[in-house]
Amino acid sequence: MKIGIAQLNFHVGNFEGNLRKMKEAIDKAAAATADLIIFPELAVPAYPPRDFLEFDDFIERCDKSIAELSRYSGGKGLAVIVGSPERNPVPEGKDLYNAAYFIEGGKVRQIVRKGLLPTYDVFDEYRYFEPSREFQIIRFKGKRIALTICEDLWNIGNENPLYTVNPMEELMKQEPEIMINIAASPFAHGHTNERKNVLKNNVKAYGIPLIYVNHTGTQTELLFDGGSMLINDRGRIVEELPYFEECIRYYHWDECFDKSNPLVSDHDQKWDKNSVVHKGLIEGIRNYFYKLGFREAILGLSGGIDSALTLVLASEALGASNVHAVLMPSMFSSEASVSDALKLAEHLGCEHRIIPITEVYQAYLDILKPHFKNRPFDVTEENLQDRIRANYLMALSNKFGYILLNTSNKSELAVGYGTLYGDMAGGLSVIGDLYKTEVYDMARWINRKEEIIPWRILEKAPSAELRPEQLDQDSLPPYDLLDQVLQAYIELEKGPAEIIAMGFDRKLVARVLSMVNRNEYKRHQFAPILRVSPKAFGMGRRMPIVAKYLS
Amino acid sequence: MKIGIAQLNFHVGNFEGNLRKMKEAIDKAAAATADLIIFPELAVPAYPPRDFLEFDDFIERCDKSIAELSRYSGGKGLAVIVGSPERNPVPEGKDLYNAAYFIEGGKVRQIVRKGLLPTYDVFDEYRYFEPSREFQIIRFKGKRIALTICEDLWNIGNENPLYTVNPMEELMKQEPEIMINIAASPFAHGHTNERKNVLKNNVKAYGIPLIYVNHTGTQTELLFDGGSMLINDRGRIVEELPYFEECIRYYHWDECFDKSNPLVSDHDQKWDKNSVVHKGLIEGIRNYFYKLGFREAILGLSGGIDSALTLVLASEALGASNVHAVLMPSMFSSEASVSDALKLAEHLGCEHRIIPITEVYQAYLDILKPHFKNRPFDVTEENLQDRIRANYLMALSNKFGYILLNTSNKSELAVGYGTLYGDMAGGLSVIGDLYKTEVYDMARWINRKEEIIPWRILEKAPSAELRPEQLDQDSLPPYDLLDQVLQAYIELEKGPAEIIAMGFDRKLVARVLSMVNRNEYKRHQFAPILRVSPKAFGMGRRMPIVAKYLS
Repeated sequence: MKIGIAQLNFHVGNFEGNLRKMKEAIDKAAAATADLIIFPELAVPAYPPRDFLEFDDFIERCDKSIAELSRYSGGKGLAVIVGSPERNPVPEGKDLYNAAYFIEGGKVRQIVRKGLLPTYDVFDEYRYFEPSREFQIIRFKGKRIALTICEDLWNIGNENPLYTVNPMEELMKQEPEIMINIAASPFAHGHTNERKNVLKNNVKAYGIPLIYVNHTGTQTELLFDGGSMLINDRGRIVEELPYFEECIRYYHWDECFDKSNPLVSDHDQKWDKNSVVHKGLIEGIRNYFYKLGFREAILGLSGGIDSALTLVLASEALGASNVHAVLMPSMFSSEASVSDALKLAEHLGCEHRIIPITEVYQAYLDILKPHFKNRPFDVTEENLQDRIRANYLMALSNKFGYILLNTSNKSELAVGYGTLYGDMAGGLSVIGDLYKTEVYDMARWINRKEEIIPWRILEKAPSAELRPEQLDQDSLPPYDLLDQVLQAYIELEKGPAEIIAMGFDRKLVARVLSMVNRNEYKRHQFAPILRVSPKAFGMGRRMPIVAKYLS
Repeated sequence: MKIGIAQLNFHVGNFEGNLRKMKEAIDKAAAATADLIIFPELAVPAYPPRDFLEFDDFIERCDKSIAELSRYSGGKGLAVIVGSPERNPVPEGKDLYNAAYFIEGGKVRQIVRKGLLPTYDVFDEYRYFEPSREFQIIRFKGKRIALTICEDLWNIGNENPLYTVNPMEELMKQEPEIMINIAASPFAHGHTNERKNVLKNNVKAYGIPLIYVNHTGTQTELLFDGGSMLINDRGRIVEELPYFEECIRYYHWDECFDKSNPLVSDHDQKWDKNSVVHKGLIEGIRNYFYKLGFREAILGLSGGIDSALTLVLASEALGASNVHAVLMPSMFSSEASVSDALKLAEHLGCEHRIIPITEVYQAYLDILKPHFKNRPFDVTEENLQDRIRANYLMALSNKFGYILLNTSNKSELAVGYGTLYGDMAGGLSVIGDLYKTEVYDMARWINRKEEIIPWRILEKAPSAELRPEQLDQDSLPPYDLLDQVLQAYIELEKGPAEIIAMGFDRKLVARVLSMVNRNEYKRHQFAPILRVSPKAFGMGRRMPIVAKYLS
């Protein structure tokens, strides 16, 4: 028996496109004489469809795709496993199941339903789906297959399991010979290793091999890294598919068992954090633009590290000729900033232009002065400069159909060191899930072979340049300290006592946590952020705005 | 036995404030010789605490509040029922229960756990809580009480029940004499009647009386309207507490039974939609400001209906002297708009000023002209005007510590007829859950006794006044038609075929649904919207941005 796995990049709600892609894969698999081709979880509508799942019309289109896949694969003489929602046939409970369709001989032969529904962080599955309480193996060409969906394998080896049931325990009673898991498992740095451990632990626990099929490509803020794999019955990774690439591979049944190739070594990919996050961000930009039907980006280039890194990433993702950089100096901008920014744009080959904000800024001050009642220069005037820049960028975005890329980093988003409708503007946040120290780290990695980002940008002290002699460090704790406290609070969800116990100053901790909580209202109005950490601002972190806790 | 019910306005995460409020209520109840006082669901942290529930420190503070409430009420000699999270003592499943603490004699005597966890629309309870599968009545002073939490009573009389279990069916086996339900049930127009029906159906089904205790006050976008009530064993509402007001009431045990007062009539309040939505919006503004520690608002007054209504609501909520109106005419503003706006501001007694945008607009055009490559006047220049106005308003907001109130309505938010960082700016959206036709309807209601909003504002054709002779109807379908299609799609979640079957033109439906879906990216960056409908934009409607469905 020959099994094909299709790690593909689908598009939420694009039924025609997704179906076309699956038909092409079926053609290829048929040509390769595969008996079975496997697509990932909810491949039909793509993942996550979110509240579209509440629309009857949307589910009908899923059903039509399943019917068409049945017809098409039947004609090609091969079986298909594919994820799609299924209507719950009984009135009690949620209206849908998150299901895997087993299609053979042109018909849906069996439907397997997901039992463990992730409802945490970016996941909302119990919002839509009823959990299955019954689990049946699939029989195909005399083989017994334990087919599960993503989270169903994740209640293992954990001292604090999230669920009270374990689908594989039920399935093992039916003596399956192999596990197949279809998934929609988003990327986060560190998560890839966790995923491998969980999957290997399943193989260890149940003693049978595992075929794992994940999505690749990105959907707004969620990045799916692929990394589909075959783990043989001895727990060795026979092959791990590339990260962030579409890929179809075939395996013979025997390859799933160590005896057929006892010398296979563990084939997992060892990517360092910067390489894989970099690849993820590139894909994140590309998918955002192309799936929305856009080609060109615009961004403000300040001469600082954040916009420099964003420009490099955007140029690689979209092609430098599709990225437009705008320098918008004020009387507070240093000459070094302007020349560093120019140097970078020229090096990359991006179209760039200089539009000073000084005159427009003065026009605002002239008309607003009588209304300011002689109050001194403060954050008002600083924010105004940021907002004029956003207006320039949005004007060019509107006039030419560019998407404005936001250049804020996670540290400043966390503490509210940014201007709403100013430097917080943009359709997509590229590096909003990288702390400032991670931004530097990736910039150094970008420069590992040659100077792409002028070294001077990495070396100078960060400044918003909104008033004379301004430095970030005047308003914020040093970034290496700040980022550690932020990580403890945001990623590790530690409280003040725990963070202080880690060795941080009590006042610093109180100040930082208060800044994070008080600025929830700003992040609420922020663009989607490409998620590369286990806890990003956005759909996976849901905080009250009007609250009084550590604030 | 005398039972007190405390319909109070709590504040998320404000443990000190919430505890103080509960102690005061205990003092009052003790003075009134009550035996028991009942606070609503999750009263200790207030509802919804959202992801704060994932912080150990947060749960610890809840536990400390429960300990302090026990100590305090013990000293006063009365029992307490109060909602607070409980740590799940077993490792399997979610870490918390949504619990009701029964405190008697200074000790937690029993903990009741919620069985049905709403995880739809604005609710995320399965994100945090394990559902209880066991239900035990409470025994207090020889009485048997079926204590449940909100949703636990909502799996009744429905042909399509959301859950596969029913806590009251279990509890009835233990022969309770009365039901007590503590709730956190947010307001939506129409929902109040649905709630009464569900509660009455429980009394009908089980033949015992019901005491229902809800929150009042608002938490960011969620409005809690109170409306706590006693329904006697014959299904008659003995008393319904006021909407959107704090209130403590006492009932004797006998009042719960019809025999003690067989002549009682059904005491539910009959408020028309405008009255209750108006009250809700006023409370929504007040709570947003006061709970965040702000007093003063600013908004742009255009002479149109949306900003006029917002100004009226804000003035009533905060006091006219705390609301600052800014008129920002351009060369495209009509004299009528300016004079109507002035008339309204003067009538209300708000501080108001005129700051024209013409010169700043010209300064932008001068500097941007060479970059526009001779392209004609288009949405770019229109948006620029909106953004200059937002900059003025945000400058005054920054300088004086005002919160900018947004004035967008639901129709324009739905179809994307608004400018990001322009008229879509603001910290709180007051009327973003009212369709344009509902805005008119409420404006007429405001004017029902005297002209508050100049009638001319209601009578003229809506216009954004961003280019000569512009009318909304040039770009959009007529609002009475548009709003019906929007409501079918957004509130009723109907698909295109269903909406066409309702009698709407095929092309119109396709156009409107496409506008809604394509503008998800704008709403993603919008302020929290005071939620008054069953389906508002915001936390209760979660849509993909990068998608290709009906778009």
